[in-house]
Amino acid sequence: MTPSEFGTLDPRIPVVAVDVAVFTVLGGELKVLLVRVKKRPYTGIWALPGGIICSDESLEEAAYRELAEKTGLKSVYLEQLFTFGDVNRDKTRRAISTVYFALVNAEGLKLKTTEKYAGMEWFSVKKLLRLAYDHANVVRYAVKRLRWKLEYTNVAWSLLQRAFTLTELQSAYESILGKKLDKRNFRKKILLLKLLTATGNMKRLGAHRPAELYRFKTRKPVIVKVL
Amino acid sequence: MTPSEFGTLDPRIPVVAVDVAVFTVLGGELKVLLVRVKKRPYTGIWALPGGIICSDESLEEAAYRELAEKTGLKSVYLEQLFTFGDVNRDKTRRAISTVYFALVNAEGLKLKTTEKYAGMEWFSVKKLLRLAYDHANVVRYAVKRLRWKLEYTNVAWSLLQRAFTLTELQSAYESILGKKLDKRNFRKKILLLKLLTATGNMKRLGAHRPAELYRFKTRKPVIVKVL
Repeated sequence: MTPSEFGTLDPRIPVVAVDVAVFTVLGGELKVLLVRVKKRPYTGIWALPGGIICSDESLEEAAYRELAEKTGLKSVYLEQLFTFGDVNRDKTRRAISTVYFALVNAEGLKLKTTEKYAGMEWFSVKKLLRLAYDHANVVRYAVKRLRWKLEYTNVAWSLLQRAFTLTELQSAYESILGKKLDKRNFRKKILLLKLLTATGNMKRLGAHRPAELYRFKTRKPVIVKVL
Repeated sequence: MTPSEFGTLDPRIPVVAVDVAVFTVLGGELKVLLVRVKKRPYTGIWALPGGIICSDESLEEAAYRELAEKTGLKSVYLEQLFTFGDVNRDKTRRAISTVYFALVNAEGLKLKTTEKYAGMEWFSVKKLLRLAYDHANVVRYAVKRLRWKLEYTNVAWSLLQRAFTLTELQSAYESILGKKLDKRNFRKKILLLKLLTATGNMKRLGAHRPAELYRFKTRKPVIVKVL
């Protein structure tokens, strides 16, 4: 059964959808990838890319499929974030949506526009427009969770180049947190988390003193172990 | 529309369910609350309490309702954990389940048995039987996430009395983690997380030196802030 067949059912029966919140840092700002909806009643309004799951795929498979179909993005690491199920979150019917999120390096990323949408753009999370469905709420929640993850996980691995200076890392953290951090304090705390390892190489930038290059010990999700 | 009406639909259409993983510490062991299923094909097999959502309630409302109906538990703090949506996780039909979890103090907890189930018991997570649906997998994942939460949140607040000694807290942590922790190291690290505050009162236990009583600064979920 295909998603479109689900759509013909009694609108009180919940349909199960997935939506994907893809974040990046561009121009020192945390941005989220949105698509412009064509179909009513949300025509012309921006939303997260997503859609209804097919009967023969898992939620995760549906999230990867929807992201690839709607934005062209592949090989992006998706993590399940939260499932939104309030009764009136979609004006047209009862829809449950499991939201996946990703933090990507936008450099060299291949986005494709599809006929399904009227457009696709990165939007600063600071000045979000009115979004379709409950997606403004979803994005706010995703940003909160992403900021939390900076505190106790290596979530930034997928945003940065393989090797980076602590200044570059701090800059990424500041963009995501939306605030400046004290340089000495940041260095001390980030190294205490034991998520990083020094590469032994230096980065030389013009007349500046060369800066040590670090990398994440693991380029897949891990959490800080304290106990 | 009631849950039973959903059940009559085409089995390929996903139904949306909630399941609740309630954990406690009893006899020094982490335990999970299970109910014994009556209906086929899982007759006699243990499972997490849960059920299909109604059309007029949110996922969270459904989780609280199911928990109260099936176990008698109310006033328990539930947190959304994860949504399980693999295609064959339920033998009888396509079912998506959003799992909520709780960590409770089992002392004085009022459990009720209902006709819907053949029994209800606390099971040690160490020796889990074969469970219905994908619930063995769900419980394993919930235990992993609960253990992670000990590292960076105040999740234990709902398990402990309002005031407790560091020895009592360490004992709770050890039961959940399933391993012994070094006393000095535990005290140092737990205080560094800044989740606790000293009450100024002491607990006297027989001939032992009185121990300082602590409490969690907040009795609702918070995460450790590092940056």
